[in-house]
Amino acid sequence: MSKSVFYHAGCPVCVTAEQELIGLVGAKNISIVNIGEDKSRISEAEGLGIKSVPALVTPNGSVLHINYGASIEDVKG
Amino acid sequence: MSKSVFYHAGCPVCVTAEQELIGLVGAKNISIVNIGEDKSRISEAEGLGIKSVPALVTPNGSVLHINYGASIEDVKG
Repeated sequence: MSKSVFYHAGCPVCVTAEQELIGLVGAKNISIVNIGEDKSRISEAEGLGIKSVPALVTPNGSVLHINYGASIEDVKG
Repeated sequence: MSKSVFYHAGCPVCVTAEQELIGLVGAKNISIVNIGEDKSRISEAEGLGIKSVPALVTPNGSVLHINYGASIEDVKG
């Protein structure tokens, strides 16, 4: 199986969701991207259809927005 | 590992999320509850902290609200 990619911005909601998802699918199956620290990847996230973080992009390319930490616009600011 | 429980209400967003989650964690690891059909379980979902569906309750009891299909209030109506 290809990896899922978890986009987050370091927010408390993000950290909790990250831990839960790693527990569910296994750390080896998820790449983690912090778009709060690496703002060069914000446009990549937007291109995938991500509107808010935390969000999980599955190997199929589906975006699962999880709970609500911050909008992409807020991360840009 | 205990099972996660996926609460949904049959909405298109719910069905997509269900398929993705089953793909990620495996059908044997998720119980599916349709609170749109089985309204007696709405109060159970609320008691777990679910505000909208689809939502996944992990074996730790954490609630992951996924995308946005419908609020619990809408499902009651």
